[in-house]
Amino acid sequence: MSSTLGTLYRVTTFGESHCKGVGAIVDGCPPGMELTEADIQPQLSRRRPGQSDLTTPRQEDDQVTIYSGTEFGRTLGTPIMLLINNKDQRPQDYGEMSRIPRPSHADFTYQMKYGVRASSGGGRSSARETIGRVAAGAIAEKWLRLTYGIEIVAWVSAVGDIEAPAVDLERISRPEVDATLVRCPDGAAAARMEERIKEILAAKDSTGGILTCVCRNVPVGLGEPVFDKLEARLAQAMLSLPATKGFDIGSGFAGTRMRGSMHNDLFVTKGGQLGTRTNHSGGVQGGISNGEPLVFRVGFKPVATIGLAQETVDFDGREVILEAKGRHDPCVVPRAVPIVESMAALVLLDLALQQRARRGSCPV
Amino acid sequence: MSSTLGTLYRVTTFGESHCKGVGAIVDGCPPGMELTEADIQPQLSRRRPGQSDLTTPRQEDDQVTIYSGTEFGRTLGTPIMLLINNKDQRPQDYGEMSRIPRPSHADFTYQMKYGVRASSGGGRSSARETIGRVAAGAIAEKWLRLTYGIEIVAWVSAVGDIEAPAVDLERISRPEVDATLVRCPDGAAAARMEERIKEILAAKDSTGGILTCVCRNVPVGLGEPVFDKLEARLAQAMLSLPATKGFDIGSGFAGTRMRGSMHNDLFVTKGGQLGTRTNHSGGVQGGISNGEPLVFRVGFKPVATIGLAQETVDFDGREVILEAKGRHDPCVVPRAVPIVESMAALVLLDLALQQRARRGSCPV
Amino acid sequence: MSSTLGTLYRVTTFGESHCKGVGAIVDGCPPGMELTEADIQPQLSRRRPGQSDLTTPRQEDDQVTIYSGTEFGRTLGTPIMLLINNKDQRPQDYGEMSRIPRPSHADFTYQMKYGVRASSGGGRSSARETIGRVAAGAIAEKWLRLTYGIEIVAWVSAVGDIEAPAVDLERISRPEVDATLVRCPDGAAAARMEERIKEILAAKDSTGGILTCVCRNVPVGLGEPVFDKLEARLAQAMLSLPATKGFDIGSGFAGTRMRGSMHNDLFVTKGGQLGTRTNHSGGVQGGISNGEPLVFRVGFKPVATIGLAQETVDFDGREVILEAKGRHDPCVVPRAVPIVESMAALVLLDLALQQRARRGSCPV
Amino acid sequence: MSSTLGTLYRVTTFGESHCKGVGAIVDGCPPGMELTEADIQPQLSRRRPGQSDLTTPRQEDDQVTIYSGTEFGRTLGTPIMLLINNKDQRPQDYGEMSRIPRPSHADFTYQMKYGVRASSGGGRSSARETIGRVAAGAIAEKWLRLTYGIEIVAWVSAVGDIEAPAVDLERISRPEVDATLVRCPDGAAAARMEERIKEILAAKDSTGGILTCVCRNVPVGLGEPVFDKLEARLAQAMLSLPATKGFDIGSGFAGTRMRGSMHNDLFVTKGGQLGTRTNHSGGVQGGISNGEPLVFRVGFKPVATIGLAQETVDFDGREVILEAKGRHDPCVVPRAVPIVESMAALVLLDLALQQRARRGSCPV
Repeated sequence: MSSTLGTLYRVTTFGESHCKGVGAIVDGCPPGMELTEADIQPQLSRRRPGQSDLTTPRQEDDQVTIYSGTEFGRTLGTPIMLLINNKDQRPQDYGEMSRIPRPSHADFTYQMKYGVRASSGGGRSSARETIGRVAAGAIAEKWLRLTYGIEIVAWVSAVGDIEAPAVDLERISRPEVDATLVRCPDGAAAARMEERIKEILAAKDSTGGILTCVCRNVPVGLGEPVFDKLEARLAQAMLSLPATKGFDIGSGFAGTRMRGSMHNDLFVTKGGQLGTRTNHSGGVQGGISNGEPLVFRVGFKPVATIGLAQETVDFDGREVILEAKGRHDPCVVPRAVPIVESMAALVLLDLALQQRARRGSCPV
Repeated sequence: MSSTLGTLYRVTTFGESHCKGVGAIVDGCPPGMELTEADIQPQLSRRRPGQSDLTTPRQEDDQVTIYSGTEFGRTLGTPIMLLINNKDQRPQDYGEMSRIPRPSHADFTYQMKYGVRASSGGGRSSARETIGRVAAGAIAEKWLRLTYGIEIVAWVSAVGDIEAPAVDLERISRPEVDATLVRCPDGAAAARMEERIKEILAAKDSTGGILTCVCRNVPVGLGEPVFDKLEARLAQAMLSLPATKGFDIGSGFAGTRMRGSMHNDLFVTKGGQLGTRTNHSGGVQGGISNGEPLVFRVGFKPVATIGLAQETVDFDGREVILEAKGRHDPCVVPRAVPIVESMAALVLLDLALQQRARRGSCPV
Repeated sequence: MSSTLGTLYRVTTFGESHCKGVGAIVDGCPPGMELTEADIQPQLSRRRPGQSDLTTPRQEDDQVTIYSGTEFGRTLGTPIMLLINNKDQRPQDYGEMSRIPRPSHADFTYQMKYGVRASSGGGRSSARETIGRVAAGAIAEKWLRLTYGIEIVAWVSAVGDIEAPAVDLERISRPEVDATLVRCPDGAAAARMEERIKEILAAKDSTGGILTCVCRNVPVGLGEPVFDKLEARLAQAMLSLPATKGFDIGSGFAGTRMRGSMHNDLFVTKGGQLGTRTNHSGGVQGGISNGEPLVFRVGFKPVATIGLAQETVDFDGREVILEAKGRHDPCVVPRAVPIVESMAALVLLDLALQQRARRGSCPV
Repeated sequence: MSSTLGTLYRVTTFGESHCKGVGAIVDGCPPGMELTEADIQPQLSRRRPGQSDLTTPRQEDDQVTIYSGTEFGRTLGTPIMLLINNKDQRPQDYGEMSRIPRPSHADFTYQMKYGVRASSGGGRSSARETIGRVAAGAIAEKWLRLTYGIEIVAWVSAVGDIEAPAVDLERISRPEVDATLVRCPDGAAAARMEERIKEILAAKDSTGGILTCVCRNVPVGLGEPVFDKLEARLAQAMLSLPATKGFDIGSGFAGTRMRGSMHNDLFVTKGGQLGTRTNHSGGVQGGISNGEPLVFRVGFKPVATIGLAQETVDFDGREVILEAKGRHDPCVVPRAVPIVESMAALVLLDLALQQRARRGSCPV
């Protein structure tokens, strides 16, 4: 299903960058939970453009309105439609420009796939599409927090080749992450990252980066082998985000270099339950959560829109020089933090409901 | 859906390591294609255990039988049931052993999730589950080859910290890959990998590794934004395989260190069509194939079953020393080659049919 | 999936009777089709309340706005969000009344299922929920008409025990149907139906009725055995409508009394193609359209809301007398005509796209 | 999904009439339930041909084997593959006969849809396909009985124009139904039905009939508005069976003639719970079970295969006389009894699991 994600908590997003609005329908939200726009707005605000001079200056308030599915501030268990109007609604034929597919953008592939494409901005491939996901994710996150005490925190762990040192996975919090503009909880690394981004902005270029995300208090038993294993669903969710090129969990690609005797997570008792001494598994074994923190990384490529001149060809194969006008995000990762958190929440709630269906009681 | 993958080409697998048999139902296979067991067996044979002294000595023929969905050697467009009997059918209570969850195996999580688990082997989390996928993938691959000329080739690009040099993506072939026991097309690297695996086997330990896979001649337009983008579906497919910890595509995690001006794939004309000068995108832009080769990597952790003694606890929290008996694969990646190829084929065919539904003609 | 219908043309509806708005997201609409609100509004207007003194006087304009998925009046192939604002937005606790589940309404079952329910009107079980379906169906219908020349016409064939005589299935048209307020193309029967409805309205009672629907020019080959056979999907679609109690196709329940020698539809040649002499099959054989007109019936129960006093009990089991205030539709079938047509269109388009995926060309 | 039914309890069937075998994969069966072939065989035996001289003499044992998903007689929560070998495996080109599409059979539509079809018997449109459904249904039924005490009983309520009188829905049982060969619990009606069937058999003709089915002890709350309402899912399930032409629930088509004041089911208290005085709703309100018995009817057309000569045309449009050889069921409804019961079980279990996911406890 292209624009719908999930089996029991199902999110269907809509909206292009310059149509009337963007948003989502959330179907399958458990009934009886307190919910108003105030539960959703904070993550939308963390995601919106124009938060600092590190990001795109496009001005959008991104105020969400709940159109259905709640009454007197409680969910009814029916579909929740979430609408965020676009301030910038200007579909227009860019003339000459529309004849040039931007390198490493979706212009060419959308045109070939659909035979038509949105004339301006990224259309459906724009980062604005993620607004519906974030709104839906905020609802999921609230339920997970109230029901299991789940905490989801993502942060910028690399910008270009600047890597942040490891953080304390048990304690890292959103306020710590938001303490710096680049959303890297290590102050020294954050300072270097900011400097790097400004330098790249000045050079009309862009950079990639990596997010790390931890989910704490995930109950044992989430993940549906064999095709909806927890890491499989997370990987799909993360790689469905614009500009992502990689996902790994626990020891990830680095773990491929280890020996089994070092990598295996030996069992120990933790507060009367079985836990593991190490967490190379990243909280998942056999595709199922094991009670340890989920830890995964998402790699983002450098932003495709750059001000530097690019030698490319137009749709007819004629050689052209392309220079993007205006200002764009030189680095997308700081704003991707709430998006990655939201996608994790969507996956976890959907799998939690499936496990509850199986075992019939709570906790799963 | 836990044991079903796909929207239009749907594969449902069944079978534990020691039940009567394993296999799959393929639903949605296009009608009228020539198909017999001989089309499926080669990939199953590349995947089966006991191929060399690098792998587990479990003896299984893994002969497939087509039970339905074909007649006179042609597909009917109806469900194809593929059955492979298990030679080793010995569900038995291992007594003491069954009280000890093996570290970094699925024993603990299956027991917690389902309240019951298969008594021997890995049950459903065993690599035998992948047999149904490989059989279904061989059918998909045949259709993709006949219809679009698609070629899918995977190989071992790393064993532990031994990395193979880059290969020629336009020419690499299965015979080249199969020329060495470790399925690494670079002879020198292959020799070092073999030596390493033997050394690790002798040490009763295990190692991880990385597969790289290329898909050539993929038509432009495959991938269904936003949640079924091509890379998202590939990531889910690969991370649903046992022992996988990471997936990246094109430049992947390494690309996060690049600048946009280096990373962007500039358009050029290739044989009258638009192509790209470089392929950092790995064949996909905006979640849709762009006609360049798909290139992605899959990271496998070191095998969890090792002969070395491990200090762990049993289900009741009592400290025990666990030593695995018998012989096991010290490195899973050589046998994973046909599995990764098969998963790629399943994803591509499903997305190709969806695109054909949209545009109504062939090629997509 | 509760609020989503379809595999390739997927409709997700939202909205309660008294929330901010109702509507739908259409995902999977083929790209490049001309589409504006003017294509959708006519069916919405045929469905809206207050069209005559036979129907509920609730005043709603039901003006649709396309929020996404089109540009310059053409579909982009991306999700189309259709929003219709509710004029009457007054969720309020009815106090005493909310303690009494209305007989044969959904008050009791919603309360038990969800533990909460919309305080006023029918919430999600209201007929207003069908607005999103009609909007989505109008889009589907346009595509089917442009691509295959499919014509879908429904009409009132019975009100209570007043049955209309058979119509000419090859010629019946919407203008003929709309010529009378009750939407029965037989003038004499229509007059008796109107009289009956007025009499029942005066008696503060209600009546049921039957719709018949024909779909002409459906290409051969639509329907996906075994669970998504054409009649199975139609039956689900129709029985998902409020107040429906029955569905039959072709000879239907009456055909159960026939002998095979009379019932079998013998083949003949029609314009160079195979057709059938009779059409007891109702256009479908083995779950697949055979090129003859699809003909089916949908039975609607009498409206549950009546002004007559009813002896019932409240949620605590206390005996009460319930008398509905205000005016309500005494008979729902005239307004159900565009709804049934829309559901047929949703099913046909979804199945047409699936068949096109299989065979790769047009017509299917 | 064509050969897969269900969201959480998912059944995928396979098999043609003359391939190696038929059966199903059941995915999502709750773990820990005792299950062996002995739980499944009784319903298969009630369904198999050759039970009496009223039915087809094709000899098939229809012995089921569980290939996976259980161990030591308990379900593992993993996919259960159920295989029933075909004794009669003789795909052969019937030569001349294969050029003549049998009237009101699926020969023509399968050929047109798939471009190929099984050469003998009905292929996938054969009643043998229902074997997998019955096997999967028997498992579902056991779980429903153990968990909720649900009882599902279907019977023949009409053969041609012979209608059985109403039965006591609270008490009707399978032994009563099986007491007569035609599976009509009313002895007098059964005798007339048998006589009629023999007469029709002698005349080389066939007849249709109606089944009625009751499901008792269904908990309140099953059914997922708006598209997976309980009656919608039942209607789809029943109309996906071969030879079905109609479905209605509760008062059904007859109820369309009633007035609301007679039709409404007034609430009363029953054992401390709310129930209804009458049950015109057939156990469902607003698409959700209300705790009263589910009651629905399924109409079957007369069997298409008859010995009488039929004037029809072959695939090339040449006029031919077709006379079916051999013996066939003159009336399918007695053997359809366990099939209808099984489909009801599949729907109820799938919806019960969805409701359990929502509310997290048992009973739903």
